[in-house]
Amino acid sequence: MTISPLAPKNFIIPNIISGIKLGCSYSGLKYINRDDLLIISLPKNSIVCGVFTKSSVASPAVDLCKKNLYSNNRLRAIVVNAGNANVFNGLDGEKAISKIINKTASSLDISSNEILIAQTGVIGEQFNYKNVINSIDNAVKNLRSDNWISASKAIMTTDTFHKVASLKCKIGEKNINITGIAKGSGMIAPNMATMLSFIMTDANLNKTILQKCLNHALEDSFNSITVDSDTSTSDSLILGSSCNAKNIKVNSFNDKILDDFKITLKFLCQNLAKQVVCDGEGASKLVTIRVSGDKNFKDLKTIAFSVANSPLVKTAISAGDPNWGRVIMAIGKTQLEINPKKITLYIGKFLITKNGERTIEYNENKVQEYMKNNQIELKIIIGNPLKEVTVWTCDFTKEYIDINSSYRS
Amino acid sequence: MTISPLAPKNFIIPNIISGIKLGCSYSGLKYINRDDLLIISLPKNSIVCGVFTKSSVASPAVDLCKKNLYSNNRLRAIVVNAGNANVFNGLDGEKAISKIINKTASSLDISSNEILIAQTGVIGEQFNYKNVINSIDNAVKNLRSDNWISASKAIMTTDTFHKVASLKCKIGEKNINITGIAKGSGMIAPNMATMLSFIMTDANLNKTILQKCLNHALEDSFNSITVDSDTSTSDSLILGSSCNAKNIKVNSFNDKILDDFKITLKFLCQNLAKQVVCDGEGASKLVTIRVSGDKNFKDLKTIAFSVANSPLVKTAISAGDPNWGRVIMAIGKTQLEINPKKITLYIGKFLITKNGERTIEYNENKVQEYMKNNQIELKIIIGNPLKEVTVWTCDFTKEYIDINSSYRS
Repeated sequence: MTISPLAPKNFIIPNIISGIKLGCSYSGLKYINRDDLLIISLPKNSIVCGVFTKSSVASPAVDLCKKNLYSNNRLRAIVVNAGNANVFNGLDGEKAISKIINKTASSLDISSNEILIAQTGVIGEQFNYKNVINSIDNAVKNLRSDNWISASKAIMTTDTFHKVASLKCKIGEKNINITGIAKGSGMIAPNMATMLSFIMTDANLNKTILQKCLNHALEDSFNSITVDSDTSTSDSLILGSSCNAKNIKVNSFNDKILDDFKITLKFLCQNLAKQVVCDGEGASKLVTIRVSGDKNFKDLKTIAFSVANSPLVKTAISAGDPNWGRVIMAIGKTQLEINPKKITLYIGKFLITKNGERTIEYNENKVQEYMKNNQIELKIIIGNPLKEVTVWTCDFTKEYIDINSSYRS
Repeated sequence: MTISPLAPKNFIIPNIISGIKLGCSYSGLKYINRDDLLIISLPKNSIVCGVFTKSSVASPAVDLCKKNLYSNNRLRAIVVNAGNANVFNGLDGEKAISKIINKTASSLDISSNEILIAQTGVIGEQFNYKNVINSIDNAVKNLRSDNWISASKAIMTTDTFHKVASLKCKIGEKNINITGIAKGSGMIAPNMATMLSFIMTDANLNKTILQKCLNHALEDSFNSITVDSDTSTSDSLILGSSCNAKNIKVNSFNDKILDDFKITLKFLCQNLAKQVVCDGEGASKLVTIRVSGDKNFKDLKTIAFSVANSPLVKTAISAGDPNWGRVIMAIGKTQLEINPKKITLYIGKFLITKNGERTIEYNENKVQEYMKNNQIELKIIIGNPLKEVTVWTCDFTKEYIDINSSYRS
């Protein structure tokens, strides 16, 4: 498998998070010669929160996470297997989850309801959970605080590179660490678009505030990316904290003292989310779409995603063709009330259209030259630019079809 | 250009419509050696109605059609040019339309406000309307009642075959003729997904009833197809009648005497709509998606289109891969309230899943064999099958990317 041309040039060494350990092992569920099982263990008094796919057919793993997060304030572990999403496997699938959770609980000497689970891979394929069960002890044996890179590799399915991000910030006088990993590459020959991300910190925050910080970070990061508009049954983003940082008590999400943490967490989520887009199947260009205007955020985002998901726009970008009419079409297909004469469009720094027609200065050669870059920016202004949203996508290439139309076997 | 493998094996000879004449000519706007201008003339006392794109950036041609249809009960002509959509050309574009309309009016000796216009091609490219003006007289000279095939060819852009349909029915004792043409092939190298269709009849009906008949036919035909989810700025479906059939007066849309006409018109629209899908860019398979359940029609259609537009489903079908998990994913991404255990899925006659898991009888080899056909049917049942909708789409192939990511010039 060729590594995406948009992969980072240098991979970082992530900071460890006090109290958090990660252990990987090889279950043989699907892949040969690579780890495919990850256990993340958190100390007593940890706080965990999460957000999950909105799919109507969410996986039983997602259902279990929601249940345990709702009923428990303290969680101690996350177990993740790659290679089978265990979706649409009926009662057998639910039993398998129960057995994995129980085995992890006994191996870590914690309760079953203190554990979350994430599974990624094919839907509706029989799940040989015994492979997973048999490798749990090994993963537990391998638990180490500096295992982030191995962890990010163990959760990959057909990702072409591992995704990790790590940042520091402050709450009051105390240094705070945040490190996260993600997997996802759109859709993959046998698989679904399964985006998983696990982020750990040592910030001492209560569950309500931590969840609010995650929701705040989510909208402009993982909820602002698309590879192909398809939504997984298994998307899970989990944020845990060991609460080991000994920062002063934060009483409210709106407390100014939390600003640095909030911004840093959002920045880290954006970084991971963009890595997922950069590993989008067949991607050769990262496309940033900024939409501003006098509409509400929801409408601006609808416009941004309409452009970001348009096969017409994405194929034109892959060809380096400044076919801006396709962008206008994609804005229009939202069916929102928009005055065409109030649409301004830039490709990179080049003004393409305003007042309902192409500008006189338009120089196709220059725009075409710009579009040879592997990072392209579209800027759309609808009326008065009072608010702005940003969405990231990738181009649509023949490699995408190659990857997704090869027979599974 | 290779003709779509899904093109009809035999092309029909359409019935003429008493009073309706069609004339084509060559303007040289874009194509070489083929007609690209069509004028349809209707006799006095004709009735015309239409439906148009819901795009927020609808073309000025669409705006003009709406205006003239609204303000005039009698219309006498439709002028259509292929090769340039004349969208986002500012005031110049509006002036061009006005000049074409005026020239057509003088050439036909009718009023400007008795004319509709449709334009199809690239967006935002300068429109050399003088080419069109100069060929209007020729098109008028060529007006003939048996010109349907030439007309269907003159409106093509990168369609690979011409699309025509013709049926007979009865209103009371009188025979009624309906003949229509359509163009559209999804998106094309330089162009937008521009679906145009012009249908003529001799049924003597008032404007309100004719429009209701068109709306009734639309929902299960042109509003039930997708090639790539992108919506044109120029989509226009116009239904005209010479009212020459001398059938007895119909007083209401609900009059039983109208049933045969309504069904026949819908059937004809479905036929044309399916021809558009069969000419979808790169299409190698026609996919029929039937969704039934105890939900309302809107929700059922949302589910059907979610499956029909999913790149994941469409690439799997192009590979002949019964990767049914992708269909489940696409149902789920609607975020509608659906109990996964109440989803039943058939591929062709093969039952794939029910009660939230794959059926024991599932035999991949047999389903795989079925998927080699170039007409595939997916049948989805959500709960109790009280209502049903049908949507048509095509598969997603490398040829699609080829066509849409070649540079325009």
